[in-house]
Amino acid sequence: MYNKEQIIAEILSGKSTDVQQEKGAVYAPANIALCKYWGKRDSILNLPMTPSLSISLAQKGSHFAFEVVNEKTDRLHLNGQAVEEQHDFYHRLFSFINLFRSHAQPRLNIHITSTIPIAAGLASSASGFASVVKGLNELYRWQLNCSELSILARLGSGSACRSLWDGFVEWQYGSRDDGMDSLGVPLDYKWPQFRIGLLLASSNKKSISSREAMAITKQTSPFYTLWPQQVATDLMGIKSALAEKDFAAVGQASERNALAMHATMLTATPAIAYSNAQTTAWMHQVWHLREDNMAVYFTQDAGPNLKLLFLEESTEDILQLFPEVEIIAPFPSR
Amino acid sequence: MYNKEQIIAEILSGKSTDVQQEKGAVYAPANIALCKYWGKRDSILNLPMTPSLSISLAQKGSHFAFEVVNEKTDRLHLNGQAVEEQHDFYHRLFSFINLFRSHAQPRLNIHITSTIPIAAGLASSASGFASVVKGLNELYRWQLNCSELSILARLGSGSACRSLWDGFVEWQYGSRDDGMDSLGVPLDYKWPQFRIGLLLASSNKKSISSREAMAITKQTSPFYTLWPQQVATDLMGIKSALAEKDFAAVGQASERNALAMHATMLTATPAIAYSNAQTTAWMHQVWHLREDNMAVYFTQDAGPNLKLLFLEESTEDILQLFPEVEIIAPFPSR
Repeated sequence: MYNKEQIIAEILSGKSTDVQQEKGAVYAPANIALCKYWGKRDSILNLPMTPSLSISLAQKGSHFAFEVVNEKTDRLHLNGQAVEEQHDFYHRLFSFINLFRSHAQPRLNIHITSTIPIAAGLASSASGFASVVKGLNELYRWQLNCSELSILARLGSGSACRSLWDGFVEWQYGSRDDGMDSLGVPLDYKWPQFRIGLLLASSNKKSISSREAMAITKQTSPFYTLWPQQVATDLMGIKSALAEKDFAAVGQASERNALAMHATMLTATPAIAYSNAQTTAWMHQVWHLREDNMAVYFTQDAGPNLKLLFLEESTEDILQLFPEVEIIAPFPSR
Repeated sequence: MYNKEQIIAEILSGKSTDVQQEKGAVYAPANIALCKYWGKRDSILNLPMTPSLSISLAQKGSHFAFEVVNEKTDRLHLNGQAVEEQHDFYHRLFSFINLFRSHAQPRLNIHITSTIPIAAGLASSASGFASVVKGLNELYRWQLNCSELSILARLGSGSACRSLWDGFVEWQYGSRDDGMDSLGVPLDYKWPQFRIGLLLASSNKKSISSREAMAITKQTSPFYTLWPQQVATDLMGIKSALAEKDFAAVGQASERNALAMHATMLTATPAIAYSNAQTTAWMHQVWHLREDNMAVYFTQDAGPNLKLLFLEESTEDILQLFPEVEIIAPFPSR
């Protein structure tokens, strides 16, 4: 087994970790998996049990601004609010950054601005950690390419390795123990009409983190044994549907994959159920719309929110049927 | 493969099907499976893929009254309302009864009174068909025992074979092609404190029948391949927990089994989801109560209703927390 420091040393291969740039700002998009990442074969390096496939959310993501400061402690602001040192997120972020620097180095003042709801199961840690490694790449002027940054981002949060590119991205799960072949690969499918509709289901109770949920599922769900085969089927289905621009096939395979992931959770011990009443109501609404021949599908991650999948031509209908929806065009027209 | 007529002939083995009793009234309780019946290996004889285990609902069930009449057509009343000949239920009932009689025989006037909501996923067809075979046993004075009646009831509706007894009943799935070893067997566990709480979730849309749902699941769900193993585990768990009167273990295994059944449906094509928003809200309520150390569990059948499992000592709490609940004591105190 490898640790993160070994992998970082191998990627940097002698590049300096002295500060080269006093300030900078980078951006990484969030991403939503159409074929899910659920379960790790190595929880240190965040190596997945299966490949996965996502769509990046264009302007929805994380802005990361850094400034080298002459102070004793690092500072973090999230969406303009100072985050205290004892906060989990502060700890997680600087533990990650500390993998790359000595304690003798100057401290940082970091501002992260998320254009998506944080911790709403909307892959904010994915865009967050992708933006961090892009920021470090500026700070130290490593000039790493996106593939190398993808591996580094994965060490912060698994799905972050898919947030280095726009559009459709496949996370090749790889076979190596050091994870050097487990990284995002952009897929060459442009689909300007593709739309994502975010439906935020209010949840006042704290639910289990996806990291913990996937570990429990992998350990206790008898149905999890079939998950790798399910992913193989759905990934193949989504990729061939993307190649043929067959939207119904993309939607069907994506929705099926999400439901299968949640089915593995329902059969975990204890059962994990991210859907709340609102989620269930929206699912039935989507299924009713499909019975009326509307091409709308959904996917769901480790939270109660639903993400609708549809094409530009359905925009007016979707806005009318789901007044609370926030629509994202992953391929901005230029 | 056998047909129903062959099985009936074998069970009756030459007993007369001439009317012996002009009128009569019988009763059979509904039952709720703690370990579910989901999927058939023979859809003609209703032979299941797995064993199952239920609890009968005492005074909640079907009263079946018959009277031989000198008329041209059979008459059926359900809960006091006349049921027309073209109605599905009329057709299903008399198709079944016609398996036992020649057209030359006199017609019947039948009154079925159900003390549970019909077609609410509350096993009304189970108590219905169990009461029918008990009624025919009177009409023709066959003097069949409950085991023989169980096999006949199964030909009408699979889970009806468990409704010939009070208390806990196991449906031995058997291995014979003619189903002569696939019948209910009463289990000798009395548990006067055991309670079932019926929670009826209103559903204004017609959902898929359990017969159709289990066929689609068996044919299309990749997770269904693990269902027989899941049942084996849960059935063993429930039976040993019953033997030890370990209520938490009964509840856990029952709830897990129900969730696994619904997980196989979620991964069917098309996905089958019986839960509505109310169902989901109740499930979360139950899980929250368990976090607060309350011993309450649920099971769910092919419908949005939830059935709470708890002990007598929790009755006051349950009534307060679920004002709409209808509580059943399956072992009436005498």
